[in-house]
Amino acid sequence: MPHTVRDKTKLLNRAKRLRGQIEAIERSLDEEDDCSVVLHQIVAARGAINGLMTQVIEGYILDHLLDDADHTPEAKQRDADELIAALKTYIK
Amino acid sequence: MPHTVRDKTKLLNRAKRLRGQIEAIERSLDEEDDCSVVLHQIVAARGAINGLMTQVIEGYILDHLLDDADHTPEAKQRDADELIAALKTYIK
Amino acid sequence: MPHTVRDKTKLLNRAKRLRGQIEAIERSLDEEDDCSVVLHQIVAARGAINGLMTQVIEGYILDHLLDDADHTPEAKQRDADELIAALKTYIK
Amino acid sequence: MPHTVRDKTKLLNRAKRLRGQIEAIERSLDEEDDCSVVLHQIVAARGAINGLMTQVIEGYILDHLLDDADHTPEAKQRDADELIAALKTYIK
Repeated sequence: MPHTVRDKTKLLNRAKRLRGQIEAIERSLDEEDDCSVVLHQIVAARGAINGLMTQVIEGYILDHLLDDADHTPEAKQRDADELIAALKTYIK
Repeated sequence: MPHTVRDKTKLLNRAKRLRGQIEAIERSLDEEDDCSVVLHQIVAARGAINGLMTQVIEGYILDHLLDDADHTPEAKQRDADELIAALKTYIK
Repeated sequence: MPHTVRDKTKLLNRAKRLRGQIEAIERSLDEEDDCSVVLHQIVAARGAINGLMTQVIEGYILDHLLDDADHTPEAKQRDADELIAALKTYIK
Repeated sequence: MPHTVRDKTKLLNRAKRLRGQIEAIERSLDEEDDCSVVLHQIVAARGAINGLMTQVIEGYILDHLLDDADHTPEAKQRDADELIAALKTYIK
């Protein structure tokens, strides 16, 4: 079972919380809150998205690269390449 | 007029697009899409949040720190401290 | 006096420590240390460079944008644009 | 052969270039260059350190997690945990 399925509830909860944070940013902008408020909301949302990213990466590594049962060496290689490409975009 | 008010439409549009991206992540997780899809969606959403952050910072600098008319030196100092604190959390 | 001059010793010390960290990475690579060692050294060096960045930004904001005595509005505008451009590259 | 050994020359060259960039920052600070120069040098050095990080991660994934010959499942699990821990610190 892929990790995004196994960890589905946990990941979905993270994504929902993140959506709530983005909606709060929208409200702050719409209600013309002090912009230092918006600044802090964005800092927090960025932390949340990084948390979601590392949780997906963690599952990806454990599930796609380590699990021997479900993946051929070719599938592992392809999945490793995908992960590396994503990290190269994320960390630059 | 504060920049988050002057740039309100532009910032709100960015925030709405970002919310759309988070909702797409939720859907992908819910529909058990391939997790490399989720990985790329998160990379894109992080780019969008960084874009929102730099646009808010840009307005903040131009409006709170440079504009001579609306702010006392004390207000500028306080706003500069707030910006620096936010950047220290963002860039670490 | 520009902040990079006023804070010269502090900034130089940070830069020297950072150079020491990079030299340690070179030694680890050269002596074929375990690569988890290298991984952690890079994580630490990145933290140090972010710390240097935020200290330079802090001085830049206080000195170039806030200080009324030394800068014309035009110089402030130009310096703000430079800072914003640097932040857009850093945060993306 | 571990990737930091196999890629030794390439990684060492990256680290040396990075050290050169840090030394240039030290010189700029010491010679009291314009601080927008320092700002851009730091942005570039950060890019270089991210490039070094992703290259080490790439080798780490291919070598420690994918290579079947040299590593027991236990060693792979331990190495995966180390990588995940490093990424959690790097991406936060």
